[in-house]
Amino acid sequence: MMTTFRKEHDFLGEKDIPNEAYYGIQTLRALENFNITGIPISKEPLLIQAFGYVKKAAAMANQECGVLDPKLADAISKACDQLIEGKFMDQFVTDMIQGGAGTSVNMNVNEVIANIGLELLGYEKGDYDHLHPNNHVNFSQSTNDAYPTAFRLALYIKIGQFIDALTKLREAFAAKATEFKNVLKMGRTQLQDAVPMTLGAEFNGFATTIKEDIQRLEEARLLICEINMGATAIGTSINAPEGYPEIVTKHLREITGIPVILAEDLIEATCDTGAYVQVSGVLKRCAVKISKICNDLRLLSSGPRAGINEINLPRMQPGSSIMPGKVNPVIPEVVNQTAYYVIGSDVTITMAAEAGQLQLNVMEPVIAFSLFSSLSYLTNATHTLTDKCIVGITANEEICKNMVMNSIGIVTSLNPILGYETVSSIAKEALMTGKSVHQITVLERGLIEQTKWDEIFSLENLLHPKFIMN
Amino acid sequence: MMTTFRKEHDFLGEKDIPNEAYYGIQTLRALENFNITGIPISKEPLLIQAFGYVKKAAAMANQECGVLDPKLADAISKACDQLIEGKFMDQFVTDMIQGGAGTSVNMNVNEVIANIGLELLGYEKGDYDHLHPNNHVNFSQSTNDAYPTAFRLALYIKIGQFIDALTKLREAFAAKATEFKNVLKMGRTQLQDAVPMTLGAEFNGFATTIKEDIQRLEEARLLICEINMGATAIGTSINAPEGYPEIVTKHLREITGIPVILAEDLIEATCDTGAYVQVSGVLKRCAVKISKICNDLRLLSSGPRAGINEINLPRMQPGSSIMPGKVNPVIPEVVNQTAYYVIGSDVTITMAAEAGQLQLNVMEPVIAFSLFSSLSYLTNATHTLTDKCIVGITANEEICKNMVMNSIGIVTSLNPILGYETVSSIAKEALMTGKSVHQITVLERGLIEQTKWDEIFSLENLLHPKFIMN
Amino acid sequence: MMTTFRKEHDFLGEKDIPNEAYYGIQTLRALENFNITGIPISKEPLLIQAFGYVKKAAAMANQECGVLDPKLADAISKACDQLIEGKFMDQFVTDMIQGGAGTSVNMNVNEVIANIGLELLGYEKGDYDHLHPNNHVNFSQSTNDAYPTAFRLALYIKIGQFIDALTKLREAFAAKATEFKNVLKMGRTQLQDAVPMTLGAEFNGFATTIKEDIQRLEEARLLICEINMGATAIGTSINAPEGYPEIVTKHLREITGIPVILAEDLIEATCDTGAYVQVSGVLKRCAVKISKICNDLRLLSSGPRAGINEINLPRMQPGSSIMPGKVNPVIPEVVNQTAYYVIGSDVTITMAAEAGQLQLNVMEPVIAFSLFSSLSYLTNATHTLTDKCIVGITANEEICKNMVMNSIGIVTSLNPILGYETVSSIAKEALMTGKSVHQITVLERGLIEQTKWDEIFSLENLLHPKFIMN
Amino acid sequence: MMTTFRKEHDFLGEKDIPNEAYYGIQTLRALENFNITGIPISKEPLLIQAFGYVKKAAAMANQECGVLDPKLADAISKACDQLIEGKFMDQFVTDMIQGGAGTSVNMNVNEVIANIGLELLGYEKGDYDHLHPNNHVNFSQSTNDAYPTAFRLALYIKIGQFIDALTKLREAFAAKATEFKNVLKMGRTQLQDAVPMTLGAEFNGFATTIKEDIQRLEEARLLICEINMGATAIGTSINAPEGYPEIVTKHLREITGIPVILAEDLIEATCDTGAYVQVSGVLKRCAVKISKICNDLRLLSSGPRAGINEINLPRMQPGSSIMPGKVNPVIPEVVNQTAYYVIGSDVTITMAAEAGQLQLNVMEPVIAFSLFSSLSYLTNATHTLTDKCIVGITANEEICKNMVMNSIGIVTSLNPILGYETVSSIAKEALMTGKSVHQITVLERGLIEQTKWDEIFSLENLLHPKFIMN
Repeated sequence: MMTTFRKEHDFLGEKDIPNEAYYGIQTLRALENFNITGIPISKEPLLIQAFGYVKKAAAMANQECGVLDPKLADAISKACDQLIEGKFMDQFVTDMIQGGAGTSVNMNVNEVIANIGLELLGYEKGDYDHLHPNNHVNFSQSTNDAYPTAFRLALYIKIGQFIDALTKLREAFAAKATEFKNVLKMGRTQLQDAVPMTLGAEFNGFATTIKEDIQRLEEARLLICEINMGATAIGTSINAPEGYPEIVTKHLREITGIPVILAEDLIEATCDTGAYVQVSGVLKRCAVKISKICNDLRLLSSGPRAGINEINLPRMQPGSSIMPGKVNPVIPEVVNQTAYYVIGSDVTITMAAEAGQLQLNVMEPVIAFSLFSSLSYLTNATHTLTDKCIVGITANEEICKNMVMNSIGIVTSLNPILGYETVSSIAKEALMTGKSVHQITVLERGLIEQTKWDEIFSLENLLHPKFIMN
Repeated sequence: MMTTFRKEHDFLGEKDIPNEAYYGIQTLRALENFNITGIPISKEPLLIQAFGYVKKAAAMANQECGVLDPKLADAISKACDQLIEGKFMDQFVTDMIQGGAGTSVNMNVNEVIANIGLELLGYEKGDYDHLHPNNHVNFSQSTNDAYPTAFRLALYIKIGQFIDALTKLREAFAAKATEFKNVLKMGRTQLQDAVPMTLGAEFNGFATTIKEDIQRLEEARLLICEINMGATAIGTSINAPEGYPEIVTKHLREITGIPVILAEDLIEATCDTGAYVQVSGVLKRCAVKISKICNDLRLLSSGPRAGINEINLPRMQPGSSIMPGKVNPVIPEVVNQTAYYVIGSDVTITMAAEAGQLQLNVMEPVIAFSLFSSLSYLTNATHTLTDKCIVGITANEEICKNMVMNSIGIVTSLNPILGYETVSSIAKEALMTGKSVHQITVLERGLIEQTKWDEIFSLENLLHPKFIMN
Repeated sequence: MMTTFRKEHDFLGEKDIPNEAYYGIQTLRALENFNITGIPISKEPLLIQAFGYVKKAAAMANQECGVLDPKLADAISKACDQLIEGKFMDQFVTDMIQGGAGTSVNMNVNEVIANIGLELLGYEKGDYDHLHPNNHVNFSQSTNDAYPTAFRLALYIKIGQFIDALTKLREAFAAKATEFKNVLKMGRTQLQDAVPMTLGAEFNGFATTIKEDIQRLEEARLLICEINMGATAIGTSINAPEGYPEIVTKHLREITGIPVILAEDLIEATCDTGAYVQVSGVLKRCAVKISKICNDLRLLSSGPRAGINEINLPRMQPGSSIMPGKVNPVIPEVVNQTAYYVIGSDVTITMAAEAGQLQLNVMEPVIAFSLFSSLSYLTNATHTLTDKCIVGITANEEICKNMVMNSIGIVTSLNPILGYETVSSIAKEALMTGKSVHQITVLERGLIEQTKWDEIFSLENLLHPKFIMN
Repeated sequence: MMTTFRKEHDFLGEKDIPNEAYYGIQTLRALENFNITGIPISKEPLLIQAFGYVKKAAAMANQECGVLDPKLADAISKACDQLIEGKFMDQFVTDMIQGGAGTSVNMNVNEVIANIGLELLGYEKGDYDHLHPNNHVNFSQSTNDAYPTAFRLALYIKIGQFIDALTKLREAFAAKATEFKNVLKMGRTQLQDAVPMTLGAEFNGFATTIKEDIQRLEEARLLICEINMGATAIGTSINAPEGYPEIVTKHLREITGIPVILAEDLIEATCDTGAYVQVSGVLKRCAVKISKICNDLRLLSSGPRAGINEINLPRMQPGSSIMPGKVNPVIPEVVNQTAYYVIGSDVTITMAAEAGQLQLNVMEPVIAFSLFSSLSYLTNATHTLTDKCIVGITANEEICKNMVMNSIGIVTSLNPILGYETVSSIAKEALMTGKSVHQITVLERGLIEQTKWDEIFSLENLLHPKFIMN
């Protein structure tokens, strides 16, 4: 079948647009201009959906302000509903990394909505006299407000998805904390034997630390709710009717259920990327902490014979093309790598934010690309970690306990009774001779009675150390 | 005069300590081991002061718990007061970047306090039988709790100092916003002429953005208030008497006036560095935004003849060793560079946080070094920016206004009346021919009456654009 | 049509594999385990092609060493040829970010080659007794050597593609340097007017700086040629026949035409990621310099009326959804953003490299993902910059010249005659009064004869300043 | 004693300079303007020394070109010799982070040299009519060339010092490689037991990797040798006599013995910071690799009872204020932290390099500060690592060997004889039952004769694996 074309023009000239395309000339120019990642914006459907909300709220507000024909407002709203439902996704073809501060995405959306609307109204695609991408769909808006607002809505939803993933991870850790609450093991600082603890307490620490990350994310997500609809060009509200900013914000809040509020200083809000930097900083924090946990899991499961071997991770796949029977901690490994991606993205976002000049940050598309990728990858990695690793971890209880009893680190319990210096000499002798702490302290030096020793090193006291003085 | 020495020993052997030194053998070992930056911890007096608070609160709590002789507790407290007053600062000689997760700093403090205390009690320095760095000064503590607690107290105070500097900066911007509220100028997006605005609105945006940073800092500062005193080794509270964690926290809160609270999960709190990563992320955010402002100031003051030249920065120093009369924007320049330092430090902190293993983060000293440096430098830079630049900025009002009237960007005001496409063609003709927008629109094409034109482009309407429709 | 399945097993159990699949059980496990980016390794066809070279060279070397049946070696080679031709690409389904240090990619390749080979030999897919992914295709290899070798080959080719793009960019700058060689303009340092120069010299500087980057890339590319084939597990050469490492390297060099050499220390080569860090560092350097150039282009084309406006970039697309006629420098903008992506990736790679432990760096997949993305994006951005921006740049010659003649900065030429201090006072008076330098120097103060003035400020002398003394 | 003052003036006004000061009014302004780090440039004496070389070479070249009175040239040269000898260091008071692109450092040097020279000529300090900081000391120069040239000379020398430190480290590793060449141990990939190797091979890998870093540093150091003396303002050579650039470069090469060469494109050379980015990238690479080694050392020495414990690091200091006898790997720890500092600095340098605009990079001072700090700290850390750790490492030979013999990983040696699948089943049985590989393979399944087993697992064959087939 032959492709047929329609003519469209803008102030730079005229172009042939494939007749089946809902996008128009400005989208086509963007498609020709930006060929960087090969990843179109349709790969982030939430962004398109969010634009659907934004354009719909704008149409409703324009109608309410009396500046847009209700029939046109209705056509725009109906077209937006299609986007919100995920239709026409293949029409969003602009590259994720693009120049123009989001203008191409905004125009891609304006054009697709106009053409859907035109068809709803019984006109041909491209017949913009009846419904115009700029004059009607974009009425009372600028890329400077529509784009960041849609970006923020999408971000809000994606952060919510990440919080859900973290909540599941926290619960998995908490369940293991209960399961392992009586598993005595050696605590380690600086990779050196320290004092006994339980494996349950260690996993409870993981649960706690994730809980704190969830709180930080929730705080950062609130910042994202401040929007600048009605700012139009550079925050002057030029071309927007009186009262429009508040009205469009109200509609957007109602349509989406997201607690958006209007920024007080629209000039500042239009050029500021502080909230993105904050979100990225918190994501980086989450990445750092999850990566630290994965490092610990890999250490604790090292071996099986020439490592620490306190826990077993689920065996997910053969670990070597040459070494038979080898199984590797592939799940924590893939999570670590995702974390490094997120940390690198934070630097990208930082530089892009710093490069904003004067009344707008032109680098916002790469901020969006980086935040969306980081959130997607980290959410996926978190689910993977929970489902394919944490829930299946088992403890090597005997190995854990033997390392405690065989350790020198248990001497710390003798400090309040014998003092730091005497105890140091016991530790030193144990290290040099290979003798046990009990042998030196009770049997040879007679510094402590056997009954007191038994009290101090009872399982109960090791699990929950009490303060025992001479 | 000959230096005389006393002997001190630890479980690794014996060393000669200069008699006048208040530090002891472990500090001497650290001095020999760590020679990296050449910057001793005494360069951060707030850290030493904070340790004074920590050790005093611990002594009071130990006494209250009945595990420390009141006479010794009193001697320790009095010695701590000396540190709090800033005395003995030259005794804190350990390098800022050090191994051992802070043990060397903690022991440096323990030894100095012990020796001051010994002299207060009438004994010789080094006569540790009567007052021991570990058994008494460090009683119920570990480096694992004392060090991060002191670090957090110092951080709390330093963040407060930075907030003060930002508050002054915000006020300076706000004052300029008022001063420039009637200066009409061209707004720019993507370095291209956009629509008119006022210089006052631009400076008000700077004030707003700094205000938001202050809020973020205040939130982050609260996270720092969660401490782990009483955690002792790895958070087990081993060697600490019942109730001690709560009691020492209460004393610390009272002594310092800082709203510290005890972490719920001491195991987690002992190895977690999330709060530092958060603080660093927020500092980085502040750096990004201040840097963006400085970039703008340098752009707006570019010229004087071959640049934008809308504003004048105070002339601080001759700008060239060869080009006479040249004056450069040296203050924004130095602030930009400080911002880059802070952003780089954030990566250092991120890596150090990620590298923490198991029950402790051994990389905490480089986190402390980086956060302290970032805070000090950025606080200094902020004061410099306020005092030596912002308060003295003047506007070139005529130049600003002429650029607006000479611009093509003013066509945007005609959109609601003439529609995007017609207005585009006016803009294009103006660009190609060099004609003014007024010439084309009113005189040649007769699209708008002169009276309507005057209404739209009145100074009043340009300063505060109203929505005007056909 | 119903999907039918075959059974495959490994030491962890048995799984159903769709009959049409050329991959096997280990690939299927990887597919289930790693769902992070949604980007399969087939998106980097050069990596698969490179694996084809590696496996073919290994088969040839195994045959030459007498340890592989020539019939099997031949089947493997033929299967590899298919991969090299780009066939079966849809069989490479593993996620770009994966755990297992590349084992899943290597096994994906081994399985696909085995099954293609089996069909060539007249057997069914999955009938591994006759041609086994591990025993035959992977013979004398480990993921530890096959994976990094394939990675390096792909990297070598991709760096070559980037060098080609940079070469074109350099040539475009050089052409403009010639075109603009007589365009006099104001040079600027610190955004302040400095001394005159030509626009040609400025563009020639861009050409020079790109030339240097090409040299650095060529140096870094050579490091990539050091491979570790025959290292097998951890570099011990275990399971590889005598002489195999040298033979396989020779075959690989001949098949690919890439000057690969065998590392001297296979233990080191197997765990070292230094060459990747170096390549990434050089890519970052390229990104920094291209980004700086784009910043300059955006500055020089700022305006058109309220900016510097020395040059015109090609007008690629309407620049605003609200401001008619506005055109933005979208091409430099998209290049800047790509540069920030590359700089962020460098941090990802750095962290991944640092996280390598003991005999292997398990984080190599995220290094590969990041380097491949950075190279692809930056190569695309470079072509875009050349084709859609540089070649079409035009100069506003009159504006450039007027800014020079109107400037104060031209006083520097008077230094050798009048001395720095006198000239400073002229500059100061010009700034304060708005007078021209000529007015003050020649007409009012009579410091220089008109004829000398004309000599100094002739176009010839401004373009190519000669040293003129009193 | 009362401080007395002299008056000095520049085109911004007049100031009182303390009579004993050799610096002048521009230095005083810089001192007032820049108060960021509190670290004066005198903390980098090599920079001052390098400026001595630059100013001396310039004076000699000016004399040779006939534009500077030999008497003045001589006075300048003699003053420079004082700086080269390290005198007057306390006169260099400008803050390390400063605005003005190095003008303040250059003027600080110009003023100090002028005043030393004036005294040598029998005049008073400040009597600049006879020897002027700008007209004579800075003759034929600009900050744009003098500052980066001095920076590069200092960098060249500092890189040399770092190479020396790395060379010592490499030798220490090589010595240990020889010492441990017969210590059989388990190799590990992904923290899981892999195949046997020797501790000697592991340390030899460390030596190899450091050797490669030295080569990269030497390459990067050569880039630093390209200088732009004679470029004067923005690379136009304005105010410099014919032939001067080549002559001053020749003198500088002769005075310093450093193989400096003149850049071909002075315009490019004046604004380009690529060489610094390259050096920083290579430093980062070194940091990454040294950090990886330190991570390995900490892992291998973990324990002593609940870790890997293959090697012992020298015991440098007590490791805990509460846990007696605990000794930590404090030296690798401090090196890791230094590496993170260097990696963070690379980001600072990257941002500063990217922020350069038009004809000069104004951010060069923070690049210098960061590179100098990174080099100093990393050089110190490298010496520390060699002297206080590597040379004293001992091996726990029995522990190493027992882990090999007890391992499952040794099954890989059976692959060529039994095939990957059979061997996998042996490995799996060993893991599940706890039996040894020998027990299953020889005694129970009878798959291999005892004599063949003894051949395969002889110490000789484990140390240097031969290819053994069925």
